[in-house]
Amino acid sequence: MTEPRALILVDIQQGFDDPYWGARNNPGAETNAAKLLNEWRARSWPVFFIQHLSTNPDSPLHPDQGKTAIHPLVAPLPGEPVLTKSVNSAFIGTTLEQDLRAAGITALTICGLTTPHCVSTTARMAANMGFQVDLVHDACAAVTANVDPSWRNSAARPDPKFIHQAALDQLNGEFARVIATHEALG
Amino acid sequence: MTEPRALILVDIQQGFDDPYWGARNNPGAETNAAKLLNEWRARSWPVFFIQHLSTNPDSPLHPDQGKTAIHPLVAPLPGEPVLTKSVNSAFIGTTLEQDLRAAGITALTICGLTTPHCVSTTARMAANMGFQVDLVHDACAAVTANVDPSWRNSAARPDPKFIHQAALDQLNGEFARVIATHEALG
Repeated sequence: MTEPRALILVDIQQGFDDPYWGARNNPGAETNAAKLLNEWRARSWPVFFIQHLSTNPDSPLHPDQGKTAIHPLVAPLPGEPVLTKSVNSAFIGTTLEQDLRAAGITALTICGLTTPHCVSTTARMAANMGFQVDLVHDACAAVTANVDPSWRNSAARPDPKFIHQAALDQLNGEFARVIATHEALG
Repeated sequence: MTEPRALILVDIQQGFDDPYWGARNNPGAETNAAKLLNEWRARSWPVFFIQHLSTNPDSPLHPDQGKTAIHPLVAPLPGEPVLTKSVNSAFIGTTLEQDLRAAGITALTICGLTTPHCVSTTARMAANMGFQVDLVHDACAAVTANVDPSWRNSAARPDPKFIHQAALDQLNGEFARVIATHEALG
């Protein structure tokens, strides 16, 4: 029998439906994440919801903005673990590593928002801590607010599709196996 | 007086002078790193050398290949700390965090190889652990071996200049202040 993998849903929250973040790619990311979630529940495999609580008062993910709830398409059921954090990595300031180790989990399937920030940072740390990582590209998305090219005197923010691709190109093979939802379900 | 910052030199090693890594940008990165190192020594500020010892027998950074030494342009002096690691993050499997905390250091200046892998992962973790990070773009470099676009059915690896830029665009503002060597020396 296949070893259970934990599904890590990173920051799939209402606050990402806000113009603050600019243009976005993969509008179907939440729907694909819901497909993964339903399959994981059907398999009785572990699922962890990661919820970002920003410390930046201007962020739509700051608790005072009232939009930190997990997105309705992937709403947690009673008893499913929701771990809160205030930095990018889901492993810093949370019990995620110890919860995974306690459950004997060695392989993760990661998806969520946003590809180059919290998803990338979480996948990098997971791999460096020794977990085998599948990253589901079409259940992730990038936004234009994710990049700041001002350090090279450019104001031209790339299209979110290219931000997403660049982030995943850097991770694929080195930190994770980058796959599609249909492959993760297979 | 300015608070001392620790200089973290990531994986500036002889093994990166190998065709294994493909094309590279910023050929002057080691020279710029040496300028930072000389200034840090002149200021008597803390310096940490990070040395990657790969577990992949094919890597030029595997100890059996005989090229894991720190690059001569930034060779450590007797007594300067060299921390070895075998994953991307300089904080995993090393004493770096505890050494920095013990020294009361809260701000880091990071440079080295390669931008999207070990430098990016180290900068992300540093920021998420609460350190204030300056990342010196012209004392870092990317190589074509850093990206694997096969997940999107592409064999076209980007130019290292664009790999480097994409990696830093993702970090700037969110995880680090991306600056030039002359700014770090100022």
